[in-house]
Amino acid sequence: MNWIDEVVFDADGLVPAIAQDGQSGRILMVAWMNREALQETVDTHRAVYWSRSRKRLWRKGEESGNTQQVSAVRLDCDGDVILLTVEQAGGVACHTGRESCFFRELAQADGLAEWKVTDAVLKDPETMYK
Amino acid sequence: MNWIDEVVFDADGLVPAIAQDGQSGRILMVAWMNREALQETVDTHRAVYWSRSRKRLWRKGEESGNTQQVSAVRLDCDGDVILLTVEQAGGVACHTGRESCFFRELAQADGLAEWKVTDAVLKDPETMYK
Repeated sequence: MNWIDEVVFDADGLVPAIAQDGQSGRILMVAWMNREALQETVDTHRAVYWSRSRKRLWRKGEESGNTQQVSAVRLDCDGDVILLTVEQAGGVACHTGRESCFFRELAQADGLAEWKVTDAVLKDPETMYK
Repeated sequence: MNWIDEVVFDADGLVPAIAQDGQSGRILMVAWMNREALQETVDTHRAVYWSRSRKRLWRKGEESGNTQQVSAVRLDCDGDVILLTVEQAGGVACHTGRESCFFRELAQADGLAEWKVTDAVLKDPETMYK
């Protein structure tokens, strides 16, 4: 059985992929892959996703320069989530210019909860995409 | 705006949730939450998911004892993925008795690729669910 046939793509032909920084262990982002994106990721060791909004392959960093070098590809027990270990070029994965897309944390106090931004903007998005 | 209204649930009312071990930084599992599961997770600091197969709330560890104490809840930039920092009771998150559900890694050599199991079974699933 081909390795890619063990991956369970959903009804839209997609599987979620988590990118984790190999150095810090931080979760940088979650995006989607179709079969072609996953195959190209494995072949080139560069993260390639499927952009659901643009409906095309999204070679991470193709516009921003923030590519991801992939050192490991993992699959979960039921085969429907991919986990990539990556080295993040420029130290910025998020389109907002932050290291991680998970830059909001729920703060709870006195029975109230709200999302607090915990991460600094490291790179100006304006300059990142021009 | 209520914090939970900033979470983008999909057409089925679900959002994927990643559980990351706060000590090791390892990704333990990915599951789904509906609004009720997320609210209960935040209220109780115990991970509660929505079981798509059983179509009911799944209080992680309710059968196996492998509960997850939640120390942080994060949200990504487009609001459609939750990241939990957890302390995994028993050190086992996967129903196969392994620490992590991501126990397979793609091994590539001589142009061939295959999934290799990299994690030991720490607890016998037979005893875990009886």
